[in-house]
Amino acid sequence: MNVQLLHTPEGVRDIYGRECARKQKVEQQILSVFHRYGYQSIETPTFEFFDIFSKDRGSVASREMFKFFDRENNTLVLRPDMTPAIARCVAKYHMEETMPLHLCYAGQTFTNSSNYQGRLKESTQMGAECILDASADADAQMLAMVAEALQAAGLSDFQLEIGEVEFFRGLAEEAGMGRETAEALRELIEQKNYFAVEEMLSGLSLTDSLRELFLKLPELFGNAETIAYAREHTKNPRALAALARLEEVLDILDLYGLTEFVSVDLGMLSKYQYYTGIIFKAFTYGTGDYIVNGGRYDKLLEQFGKEAPAVGFTILVDSLLLALERQKQSVTLETMENLILYQKSSRKAAFAFTKKLREEGHSAISLLVDNGKDFSFYEEYARRMGMEAIYYLDSDGEAAVKMPYTKEEA
Amino acid sequence: MNVQLLHTPEGVRDIYGRECARKQKVEQQILSVFHRYGYQSIETPTFEFFDIFSKDRGSVASREMFKFFDRENNTLVLRPDMTPAIARCVAKYHMEETMPLHLCYAGQTFTNSSNYQGRLKESTQMGAECILDASADADAQMLAMVAEALQAAGLSDFQLEIGEVEFFRGLAEEAGMGRETAEALRELIEQKNYFAVEEMLSGLSLTDSLRELFLKLPELFGNAETIAYAREHTKNPRALAALARLEEVLDILDLYGLTEFVSVDLGMLSKYQYYTGIIFKAFTYGTGDYIVNGGRYDKLLEQFGKEAPAVGFTILVDSLLLALERQKQSVTLETMENLILYQKSSRKAAFAFTKKLREEGHSAISLLVDNGKDFSFYEEYARRMGMEAIYYLDSDGEAAVKMPYTKEEA
Repeated sequence: MNVQLLHTPEGVRDIYGRECARKQKVEQQILSVFHRYGYQSIETPTFEFFDIFSKDRGSVASREMFKFFDRENNTLVLRPDMTPAIARCVAKYHMEETMPLHLCYAGQTFTNSSNYQGRLKESTQMGAECILDASADADAQMLAMVAEALQAAGLSDFQLEIGEVEFFRGLAEEAGMGRETAEALRELIEQKNYFAVEEMLSGLSLTDSLRELFLKLPELFGNAETIAYAREHTKNPRALAALARLEEVLDILDLYGLTEFVSVDLGMLSKYQYYTGIIFKAFTYGTGDYIVNGGRYDKLLEQFGKEAPAVGFTILVDSLLLALERQKQSVTLETMENLILYQKSSRKAAFAFTKKLREEGHSAISLLVDNGKDFSFYEEYARRMGMEAIYYLDSDGEAAVKMPYTKEEA
Repeated sequence: MNVQLLHTPEGVRDIYGRECARKQKVEQQILSVFHRYGYQSIETPTFEFFDIFSKDRGSVASREMFKFFDRENNTLVLRPDMTPAIARCVAKYHMEETMPLHLCYAGQTFTNSSNYQGRLKESTQMGAECILDASADADAQMLAMVAEALQAAGLSDFQLEIGEVEFFRGLAEEAGMGRETAEALRELIEQKNYFAVEEMLSGLSLTDSLRELFLKLPELFGNAETIAYAREHTKNPRALAALARLEEVLDILDLYGLTEFVSVDLGMLSKYQYYTGIIFKAFTYGTGDYIVNGGRYDKLLEQFGKEAPAVGFTILVDSLLLALERQKQSVTLETMENLILYQKSSRKAAFAFTKKLREEGHSAISLLVDNGKDFSFYEEYARRMGMEAIYYLDSDGEAAVKMPYTKEEA
């Protein structure tokens, strides 16, 4: 037999059994939080024209997208993320709207990464976008939603780290760097290549205070004191405005009761030019990378023809599930599975009994007995499938009898 | 601006607002029926190796699949349907299982049809597969699940039509036709090209009784009497066994109380060679084509290396939603949307009030008031968004006051 018939392509996988039940439960819980926050679901196509996700708009490089052609020879791509597609929708369906729009999504995204990276090529993302609201309240609301969504998913131990892209841009401006120099410096800092950072800074004429601040960036992690320290070391209005905004967001998060989950990270830099204000990530243990990322992108929608501030985030559902599993956080699956065995002559009573169980919200499988097999055979089957109980309706078919059976503990 | 930036490719679309809320509600209701029937969710990748969906296994021609290449130059396709992927999974993860497996799914499927056909190129399919159960009880259970799923979606008026592929195959055998001749005849009957059917039959040596039956096929639609008529006109054991099986399935469906929804259609033929027993479709008004199709396919899993009988069905969710809309069947959306307006100084009280509403299961949006705008502005916004109520917490921020506001009736 063709061996490919049993395999999936590299980087994609099947999800089944209890893992799939847990995934759907977690997704449902998160979606329910989004909806209670007044966010409305939107579904965009799995593939779109390449232009939607081009360099300035997307978070994935062209060479890492799955591309193909339609019958008119246009280049299509499997969406690498959702935000540009939602920006397109807002420009198309809400061109005249001036008041806040609250949108959320759950869907598959795709990156054609190299096999050596060992990353998933198809992953589930859930997220929310608050459009046309430029306030710090909107920023904080996003973070509150992230916290509540993670808690609803069963995660109790996580950290929200918040940065502000305008802070670094302000410092770069104060240092008189051009965009390219600033980008090179950002890369060096991200790579934690401190010698190269020092060398690069030594070639520029900076105040001692600003030089110290650049070198301290990777350590500027903490709370209000971190902001106070930074404020003392820069005079750039853009950087100071960024610090003031961060402070306001932290104050609002305190009113949400979230201070214990929040840290400021002034060294959090983003390579994505489309962020214009706060950026944030959520971390937990059990997975190496972030499980949520987001931020403010006030200029992205302009590219689709509508000027509108916006802030949003994405939960990487697969990473979240991995973390939950490694933390042994069990997701409660309510449904009790019951096996109802019957004879041909007891069909009617069996169907009625099964229907009653289902109406009570239980899960019930009715199965015609094979009289060539004895009960232990069905007992093993029920145990293998993790069922709760077995009932039997004999050929008289009057009433269901609960059979002696003990479920194997997982 | 690049005009493609606002458009989706031909044949795919955005779903948002109330339409999206309705779609998700319907999907949730259907999934809940599947789960209560003891079917477990499975998620397979959006794309797979081309071989999985090749001619003998899939329901879509190669030229109607979206194809692309992975980095090793294997041909990948966006899945055109789910059944072959689930057959692959069963062969891979349940090779040793001998007792029934109950699987269900919800996912996007893709056909690269010509634009002139005006069909959706991406559509949502939900369905279930019962593997390793060859009984008529399993056939009937599938139909019972279809009926309950459609009712749960809000559809009250629908018809389940049931055929049996072995009936036609038996008649063809009795007539001494080869597979190709039988296939040519099937096509002529499907095209309702009766003159050509008559001409073709006149070239064969048949009993008068069998000739009459072939010509009557398109009219062999109804109930038990239809089966009785057919039984009188054939002596072929294969055809007779098919009729007996159909009768048994109808008898069981009667015990489920579904007789009023069911019709026999002996003229229902299928071009898919992988069906081996009953086949069925569900119809309703408001959409031209079927909204559910399914059948028994006892030989498909063998192609993936596991001998296992199986029966399954697919609900075409987009067609179902279209029918519900055209029938003006409203899907009840429980969530009440509330707008909570607050001043900076009343943030804390506003967040507490909003949280309370959300905990009660309502949907609530909190919004910092722009003091440059007057209340009528927010009133219009709430009306435009279809919100239920507006509350205001003034700068004293003690208690939320319900504002005078009437929702516009949809």
